[in-house]
Amino acid sequence: MKKIINDPNDVVSEMLQGLVKAHPQLVYFDEVEVIAKKDKAEKVGLVSGGGSGHEPAHAGYVGKGMLDAAVAGNVFASPSPDRVLKGIQEANTGKGVLLIIKNYSGDIMNFDMAQELAGMEGIKVETVVVRDDVAVEDSTHSTGRRGIAGTVFVHKLAGAKAETGATLDEVKRVAEKTIANVRSMGMAMSPCVLPGVGKPGFLLGENEIEIGMGIHGEPGVEKTSIKTAAELAEILCDKILADYDVTGNEVALMVNGLGATPLMELYILNNEVEKKLSKHNIKIYKIFVGNYMTSLEMAGCSITLLKLDEELKELLDAKCDTPAMKV
Amino acid sequence: MKKIINDPNDVVSEMLQGLVKAHPQLVYFDEVEVIAKKDKAEKVGLVSGGGSGHEPAHAGYVGKGMLDAAVAGNVFASPSPDRVLKGIQEANTGKGVLLIIKNYSGDIMNFDMAQELAGMEGIKVETVVVRDDVAVEDSTHSTGRRGIAGTVFVHKLAGAKAETGATLDEVKRVAEKTIANVRSMGMAMSPCVLPGVGKPGFLLGENEIEIGMGIHGEPGVEKTSIKTAAELAEILCDKILADYDVTGNEVALMVNGLGATPLMELYILNNEVEKKLSKHNIKIYKIFVGNYMTSLEMAGCSITLLKLDEELKELLDAKCDTPAMKV
Repeated sequence: MKKIINDPNDVVSEMLQGLVKAHPQLVYFDEVEVIAKKDKAEKVGLVSGGGSGHEPAHAGYVGKGMLDAAVAGNVFASPSPDRVLKGIQEANTGKGVLLIIKNYSGDIMNFDMAQELAGMEGIKVETVVVRDDVAVEDSTHSTGRRGIAGTVFVHKLAGAKAETGATLDEVKRVAEKTIANVRSMGMAMSPCVLPGVGKPGFLLGENEIEIGMGIHGEPGVEKTSIKTAAELAEILCDKILADYDVTGNEVALMVNGLGATPLMELYILNNEVEKKLSKHNIKIYKIFVGNYMTSLEMAGCSITLLKLDEELKELLDAKCDTPAMKV
Repeated sequence: MKKIINDPNDVVSEMLQGLVKAHPQLVYFDEVEVIAKKDKAEKVGLVSGGGSGHEPAHAGYVGKGMLDAAVAGNVFASPSPDRVLKGIQEANTGKGVLLIIKNYSGDIMNFDMAQELAGMEGIKVETVVVRDDVAVEDSTHSTGRRGIAGTVFVHKLAGAKAETGATLDEVKRVAEKTIANVRSMGMAMSPCVLPGVGKPGFLLGENEIEIGMGIHGEPGVEKTSIKTAAELAEILCDKILADYDVTGNEVALMVNGLGATPLMELYILNNEVEKKLSKHNIKIYKIFVGNYMTSLEMAGCSITLLKLDEELKELLDAKCDTPAMKV
């Protein structure tokens, strides 16, 4: 296993220490593995989190205009309720807290328990669950669709709404609307190695890729041979477009890398996705290309579409300043 | 070869098309593979470039406060003089143009020829050559030290100076000062595959890394066994600190990934580098962690230190807005 780490047991803690050194506007709470903003404005607090290994998600989205706190579990493992509770406490300024949860069974259970614990402390907490991955209806890690890169749009839009001084109900409404409007579909070309395991979680042949694989290596739709960028754009977009109608609409597009895929390839894919969407008379309002929600050193990508209206466009364009996204 | 591409001969052109779709404030000139700003201010123009495969370098640094144009060669191959000339023409608003060249023999030759061609058109062009890599004194690709990730600091600081309305001589002075103050050192853990070649350019054993390897896979200092993050920080920083004295100084630090190294590992390395520099009584003013100068899907990293004074700090903090760096 070739990784730039020390003890595999310490990767999350040392990563978050390294993060706050680079971004001193953030504070790190060790033992609970929470990253929060130092400078708190009085507004609805936004908290997200989940297993580590998906960097920059979620700590990289803590900052003005997005999250107020992010809670990290061990690699690909949900954070325990006490960690999430700490995130809630840090994000709370008296106006309530919204938890943005990706739909994995462990996260649902732990975030829900934290919501209850926070309730006992008198903190008003609401939750939303992101289920953007159209690949599979249920998975080894989830009942219902999984939450993947589309979650970043939920952070962005709900975060922008919270900055306006909106109530918890209003912020939750925007988060739910974003979730209703977002779809993703991905594929993997190589496995990743968990630091504590030391060997790949699955194997793919020399010229084999897996369409619809999850961000923890959960099985996808099919294993197939390597495709051209144009074919991949076709396959991934078709699956999304079969799921909801965005013809004639404006969308935000995210072309996301899973960790080891060079920016060169993501831009080439973006070029093809844009051509494909144009053919379907879909107008792209804004494009994000980069590593937004990763799976350690997995090679591969995902495509996310977010159907926009005037409200969502305004929130998408609102200023934000976080380590991984600045608008 | 698993890559998200179409025809290997088209990767540069399709990548740059995909880039301008995501960043419509930029314009792409095909055939010459030049990316430039649409919105031109009257100021000294900055142009950089080189072989492709190092994304986001250099097209990702075109924008307000950094470059005015970037010229792309084929993968790991220097752009021809006519391409560089087009970059100069696009960057020129009558106040002269500075070429920021990484020290590789091909780039030196082609950028120098372009400078001559531009001179014949009456465009005043100056050049600076970045030689930040302390690993080797000469290499298979260069006479003298190679230019690597430290080049990004030259783009940033010279770019900030140009925005102030400074003369070509003043912008060149800042670029030269930055070059004098910047040092980098890297290591590779895995090879990369050129799209047109289809197999790795070199091989490393299961537990083998190469210290000081170049960003095109040029030989480094030594092949050794995999190290901990703490050991790597020690090795890379020691080589830089042996080369120049920054004790008691303030520095900017860049922890750069070569393409396939997850952000998790870069943050863990950052944590160790900060500890190491603290021990040497070096104060870190600002830290950049991410993929700034890559080698396709190579796994590995580089460390860059930039010795700062008040002038350089101010230029480092100046606003910039490019696809790959926003301050």
